[in-house]
Amino acid sequence: MRVIVHGIGAIGGTVAATLALAGHEVVGIARGAQLAAIRAQGMVVRTPDRVLTARFDCVADPSEITFRPDDAILLTVKSQQTEAALDQLARAGVTDQPLFCAQNGVANERRALRRFPNVHGVTVMMPADYLTPGEAVCYGTPRHGIFDIGCYPGGTDAADTALAAVLNTAGIAAFADPSVMESKYGKLLMNLQNIVETAIGAGEAARRLHALLEAEAKTVLTAAGITWRDVGASDPRRAELMRMGKVAGVQRAGSSTAQSLARQTGSLETDFLNGEIALLGRLHGVPAPLNTGALRLAARLLREGLAPGALPVSEVEAMLGIQPA
Amino acid sequence: MRVIVHGIGAIGGTVAATLALAGHEVVGIARGAQLAAIRAQGMVVRTPDRVLTARFDCVADPSEITFRPDDAILLTVKSQQTEAALDQLARAGVTDQPLFCAQNGVANERRALRRFPNVHGVTVMMPADYLTPGEAVCYGTPRHGIFDIGCYPGGTDAADTALAAVLNTAGIAAFADPSVMESKYGKLLMNLQNIVETAIGAGEAARRLHALLEAEAKTVLTAAGITWRDVGASDPRRAELMRMGKVAGVQRAGSSTAQSLARQTGSLETDFLNGEIALLGRLHGVPAPLNTGALRLAARLLREGLAPGALPVSEVEAMLGIQPA
Repeated sequence: MRVIVHGIGAIGGTVAATLALAGHEVVGIARGAQLAAIRAQGMVVRTPDRVLTARFDCVADPSEITFRPDDAILLTVKSQQTEAALDQLARAGVTDQPLFCAQNGVANERRALRRFPNVHGVTVMMPADYLTPGEAVCYGTPRHGIFDIGCYPGGTDAADTALAAVLNTAGIAAFADPSVMESKYGKLLMNLQNIVETAIGAGEAARRLHALLEAEAKTVLTAAGITWRDVGASDPRRAELMRMGKVAGVQRAGSSTAQSLARQTGSLETDFLNGEIALLGRLHGVPAPLNTGALRLAARLLREGLAPGALPVSEVEAMLGIQPA
Repeated sequence: MRVIVHGIGAIGGTVAATLALAGHEVVGIARGAQLAAIRAQGMVVRTPDRVLTARFDCVADPSEITFRPDDAILLTVKSQQTEAALDQLARAGVTDQPLFCAQNGVANERRALRRFPNVHGVTVMMPADYLTPGEAVCYGTPRHGIFDIGCYPGGTDAADTALAAVLNTAGIAAFADPSVMESKYGKLLMNLQNIVETAIGAGEAARRLHALLEAEAKTVLTAAGITWRDVGASDPRRAELMRMGKVAGVQRAGSSTAQSLARQTGSLETDFLNGEIALLGRLHGVPAPLNTGALRLAARLLREGLAPGALPVSEVEAMLGIQPA
């Protein structure tokens, strides 16, 4: 199995580097300064235990790859870049190779299945940062992360178990999971906090607002007949396999949403996180004012070019329509 | 009600022009040569009865519009341009104005509802061509077209009846429809022929292949629990309201898919037509080899830069896995 990693950021970079170091054939797809840095110096991943440096092939566009039947494709771009990535893969000649959506949100699998027959979901539990070209920081220890992997919409097949086996050799705990979307909805509930934490910074206030966003979301998911499974700190696998470690000289940059804002990428994943709850609420007639307010908050952070942590708690509470505590 | 028409092609151009001529306030959003032509000479619409020339405001991007609470937004871009159009509208400050997806396919409404709270579907029955900047041809007579309009996912509201009333003054027969998506699935079944007709030209062979694509699609829709309603020639409203007329000096250019290929736009709508059937087949475990083959056919027409009608019937039959008649 050759692994094509489409999107070399915090997650894609860590996965590609650790697979390459474990001796697997890897091709990364990256852009601009990131591509140049990886070609010049390899991909550096700082972990709690050591600094890894990996060399692997990296290209700017899938059209530079001659795809093979034994390729597995990991999609690690943000949800707002999925359509463009799928277009690229189709043009590059991808047909029925397994395509793994290792992304936040729950909308990518369906979008991929419209284009390709062999689509899989991956729940990615991997605390990692990407702020500097050619470099990622991954805080997970003793394993870098925990991945649940399964067919979309359900079941598992040989591709899932093969990818899980490969990842396990690379220090990533991976499990074939016949109901991977339940696990991804669990991750979605966690990700609802990203935009709030991005706006006001981590802490007690962010946790309080997250609890409110999550409660609203659970009401919406229940009305929509969607089931989920906790994948956060209450996941019994966490204590043994992956705890948050400290990386020398580095402070956690926050969620992927905060990192996108800090890197001034011009878009945030919020439409596919809180926006999924807003969509389901509208479809099923359940009010979701908090998560809808979170979408307005994301639009404002982008429009005003604000830095992570720039807004006072009271202002965010007002935007979500929440009474101050 | 001011009507914003996002996408001035055959449908958007005819709608914007007829609304403007009926005295309604219209703003069009168009690009490149189309925008320049409309600004220079107005929008020309050739119909069986006469040649219309309409003047209306036209801009390149929604950000040039100061949106008002009384705006109704008609989305008339192709499905593959919907995400970009929604991004533009969000950045331009659209909030809860009614957004009408007057597009083929059934995927746009859900994508819009993720971003905006007030989403409507429109089934567009309007035989129209756009091949020359600043000019559309509309063959419908005595009315230019028949539109069904309703809330997504269901019901009707004041915005639907208001838009229908406005369109009716402009020579477009429009009906508020509480189950508009049923009507859009009916239109989808008709649109399954577009790619085949584009590849081999209209005629007996295209009709035969369409019947096969449609039969497969009905099996898939039934398995998915989706209901549809015929909107083609068997629609009893057609005989009275809209027949195919002849336009002096013009020959019908074929479906919107054929026109996209002829204009070398670089993308086709097939992923949202036959691709919808492929997606539902995969989700519900029903084989859909014909409509999946139609996706490969579209990819090939694009990749090889073929002109409409360029392929022999036998080659298209082989690509769909169909035994020759």
